[in-house]
Amino acid sequence: MNLKRLFHDSPSLFLVPLGGLSEIGMNMMALVHRGRCMVIDCGVSFPDAYLPGVDLIMPKIDFFHEYDIDVDALVLTHSHEDHLGAVGYLHHKIGSPPIYGTDFTLAMLEPRMKEAGKYPEKKINKITPGKKFKAGVFEIEPLRVTHSLVDCVGLAIQTPQGMLVHTGDFKIDHDPIDNWQFDEQRFRELGDQGVRLLMSDSTNVESPGWSLSEKALSESLEQLIGSVKTGKIIVSLFSSNIHRIQILMDIAAKVGRRLMLCGRSVLSNVDLARQHGHLSYDWSQLITSREIDDIPSNKIMVLSTGTQAEARSALSKMSHGTHPDVDIDEGDTIIFSSRHIPGNEKRISLLMNNLHRLGAKVIDFRDAFVHVSGHARQDELKTIFEWVRPQNFLPVHGEYRMLCKHYELAKNTIPNTKTFVAENGDVVELSDKVFRKLAERVTAGKLFLDEARNLVPEETIKFRRKMGSQGIVLVSAVVRRKDFKPLMRLELESLGLPGEIDWIELEQSLEELLSEYRGDSDVDFESLEEEISLQVKRYLRRENGLKPVVIPHIYAV
Amino acid sequence: MNLKRLFHDSPSLFLVPLGGLSEIGMNMMALVHRGRCMVIDCGVSFPDAYLPGVDLIMPKIDFFHEYDIDVDALVLTHSHEDHLGAVGYLHHKIGSPPIYGTDFTLAMLEPRMKEAGKYPEKKINKITPGKKFKAGVFEIEPLRVTHSLVDCVGLAIQTPQGMLVHTGDFKIDHDPIDNWQFDEQRFRELGDQGVRLLMSDSTNVESPGWSLSEKALSESLEQLIGSVKTGKIIVSLFSSNIHRIQILMDIAAKVGRRLMLCGRSVLSNVDLARQHGHLSYDWSQLITSREIDDIPSNKIMVLSTGTQAEARSALSKMSHGTHPDVDIDEGDTIIFSSRHIPGNEKRISLLMNNLHRLGAKVIDFRDAFVHVSGHARQDELKTIFEWVRPQNFLPVHGEYRMLCKHYELAKNTIPNTKTFVAENGDVVELSDKVFRKLAERVTAGKLFLDEARNLVPEETIKFRRKMGSQGIVLVSAVVRRKDFKPLMRLELESLGLPGEIDWIELEQSLEELLSEYRGDSDVDFESLEEEISLQVKRYLRRENGLKPVVIPHIYAV
Repeated sequence: MNLKRLFHDSPSLFLVPLGGLSEIGMNMMALVHRGRCMVIDCGVSFPDAYLPGVDLIMPKIDFFHEYDIDVDALVLTHSHEDHLGAVGYLHHKIGSPPIYGTDFTLAMLEPRMKEAGKYPEKKINKITPGKKFKAGVFEIEPLRVTHSLVDCVGLAIQTPQGMLVHTGDFKIDHDPIDNWQFDEQRFRELGDQGVRLLMSDSTNVESPGWSLSEKALSESLEQLIGSVKTGKIIVSLFSSNIHRIQILMDIAAKVGRRLMLCGRSVLSNVDLARQHGHLSYDWSQLITSREIDDIPSNKIMVLSTGTQAEARSALSKMSHGTHPDVDIDEGDTIIFSSRHIPGNEKRISLLMNNLHRLGAKVIDFRDAFVHVSGHARQDELKTIFEWVRPQNFLPVHGEYRMLCKHYELAKNTIPNTKTFVAENGDVVELSDKVFRKLAERVTAGKLFLDEARNLVPEETIKFRRKMGSQGIVLVSAVVRRKDFKPLMRLELESLGLPGEIDWIELEQSLEELLSEYRGDSDVDFESLEEEISLQVKRYLRRENGLKPVVIPHIYAV
Repeated sequence: MNLKRLFHDSPSLFLVPLGGLSEIGMNMMALVHRGRCMVIDCGVSFPDAYLPGVDLIMPKIDFFHEYDIDVDALVLTHSHEDHLGAVGYLHHKIGSPPIYGTDFTLAMLEPRMKEAGKYPEKKINKITPGKKFKAGVFEIEPLRVTHSLVDCVGLAIQTPQGMLVHTGDFKIDHDPIDNWQFDEQRFRELGDQGVRLLMSDSTNVESPGWSLSEKALSESLEQLIGSVKTGKIIVSLFSSNIHRIQILMDIAAKVGRRLMLCGRSVLSNVDLARQHGHLSYDWSQLITSREIDDIPSNKIMVLSTGTQAEARSALSKMSHGTHPDVDIDEGDTIIFSSRHIPGNEKRISLLMNNLHRLGAKVIDFRDAFVHVSGHARQDELKTIFEWVRPQNFLPVHGEYRMLCKHYELAKNTIPNTKTFVAENGDVVELSDKVFRKLAERVTAGKLFLDEARNLVPEETIKFRRKMGSQGIVLVSAVVRRKDFKPLMRLELESLGLPGEIDWIELEQSLEELLSEYRGDSDVDFESLEEEISLQVKRYLRRENGLKPVVIPHIYAV
């Protein structure tokens, strides 16, 4: 049976991961049954320097069209960018299904969709932990989980092939800042009733033990911040970490410092969290741009974006002395309450060096306990296994290496559970008889968008990398069409090549090549341009070891 | 007094760091006295993806010419690339001074200088720990230190301003693989006799405690490798780490696996170390390309380059199935006996994912004790302070952040010692009265070389980054010079831009612009090209949010 017929006619449930099952980021998973589906999450990921000019990465969604699959629901587990950042761009391309999310998730979604130019208000549905809702053949129950963000859920999904549990992103924090407890009881109940398939977050599977709680962190941060008697304190943090912001607001009040908020995402997230009752602070104590110069520095605490040394973040600006409000002075203390996302280490290191040069004291996770992850470590992952005791297990959200380690962890912890590793584009079948990965795969991959949200094709990126590392040589000649008489001197122009090249010899040999055609009224321009290109390449490779892109033009008039 | 007169006429000693005192890499320090100097080390550093097309980085050496300083000696502490990699390119540019190094350092230098086209055999001088030699006003005594490489030394330098001690790169390994002990006694003696200034390696100042020894590591590696009963074992390591190679040769013999060497630098370094008596192995047991297919996989251990996932390394080729000799099979074990150099994490992660996909088991420092650093941690650095008890201290070899931490460590450990942080280009004065950093600085910076060893100017790199991330638009028109009559349709060509751009509207507006000049015999081509460029930029910014490089050409014939 071919895949399309399977998706439409088989009574099996098919899980089709389109993002997040080969990387940290751009989570998106379709649960397909008889030609219809629900989709869990729709996130973005972020580029590194190997993707020049790319600003955002999203999952390819050809799958829905290629197999004619209708989407009954898009369910969001929480509001991190890697779970909802692509909704604004992709929602209408998958048939504008109803969107489901918790109060705060939807609050974070709204401005993002509006920014992308679409906000289909009528499609937006608020969900609450414990309250089941229907989407096509699926009955979905949000499950409260704890994470580094407020109002996060996992999902219990009643399907034609039995009960599925998807953890979403989580850690098990028994002492959450907002007292919204991880719903251990419901996870255990589901386990008692029988779960066909568990999907669980693999992000931190490489870390042994149990993650520390935000509250434990708050004690450490309070001690650290309390010990700083002089100078400003600047705390750089992930702006979506509302718990962390609450902790720092409390500490600021205790140690008698007033808060200043810096950076667009810190400002907007605090605003949303405040509106939705997730932050409490004496808001009159917030420092405005106008006030900051009049407040003694040891009465100031700044919360800032820029943990990853993003070029235009508030902290980067401060480090270059170009922030409109905050100058970094000798004796200030800068705390990175964050981790270094792989790929950003070098950039962060440069930022920290600059902060040191300004005379600031810089503290990160290597110096003190200033950050905890929002993702479950091995002992928490095992605990989920023990609560849910699933018949089958699929590791989700992680690089391939992490999925493999999560698979190993399951093999060792719940040996009777069937498990394997699947990647984006794989098709996983669940029926009363089988839990398996099919041999056939569907289209999956990445869409690259630039800052202005133009789609940048992969070949364009490859070409950019080539010309950006090797440079370009332009060769231009103007000739009379009827007899190929040159009408000007041949022009050679190099862009992005090193300096010491003997262009004259090359120019002469190209002039000679052209002169061979003089008097010819029927020159094959394309093959001549090809010949010019080859000659330039050969010359620069031989003389200077260079391999630039060569663009030859013969203009015939 | 201006700097040049100071350097030539003052009785003070001047320390001029030209590399390594703002980064890990490209170490080079000049010790200047009355217009002459000795230079310690002459290394390279390596680029990241933010330096497109750059292959090697070297220190700028304008200083010597600008201040007319003669170099009496280039002394190499050891043979890591960041200490001797630039000698072949810079030696003749600093006046071809005599070169001093230990036996193995010189052995590693020779092929590198020959590759760069220069090997001034008569200038090469072998030095031995404990044997003093003279270079201009300096009397230099190499001091045996332990490091991740064989035959490394620090330097005790008798200068007109008293005794200086430079540690070179070191750790204090009481149990070195080759039994060449760190010369604690001599360091203590120098301390007893009085040291004016200590310069010490800051690389690992952020790590608390004492680094573990290679021997401790060897026990862990032996246990790990012994436990692998099936499949090949591939160990990826820093090819200069001869101690590590010896450990693995011993283990291979013990567990009954034969060794295969893969990757150019592993092969050449093993060859050199063997010639110079630093490796012992039953060489008949080395596996050749022809043999490997006939040997059972559980009798094979491969030593390979590629710890940093370098694109053309042996391990990268194996992961892509393109290595001529070694295939990675399901059940093979791959050990990264290395650290992840900052900036390479993401690339390494991708490599590891690929190895997992091939069914290999991948083990790195996060999974087991498979690597130790060659650099001293805090307790070792403090021990050096206590042995040497210098009057003055200058932290060397590290990013600015690390130099600051080493400075702090000195303040806390030897509070009577004067210390400060200096960077590349700073001038540090040492006399009987002062130890200080001057306000004036000298030229220091980076030279960027491409793979063919062309010098790539910084502006070229900036331009490459711009065109590599934003793309290029070429605009070409051919007109008759005497009356500006267009002789062909205007041509617009885009390189590296996203696809969906309406070029027709832009083309029309440019044609209109040109037509305004028709009949004009005296067009200012430069300002017209400027105007075209502006118009293209405005259009693409407005319509598509793009900011490409624009190259306009009007050819007049």
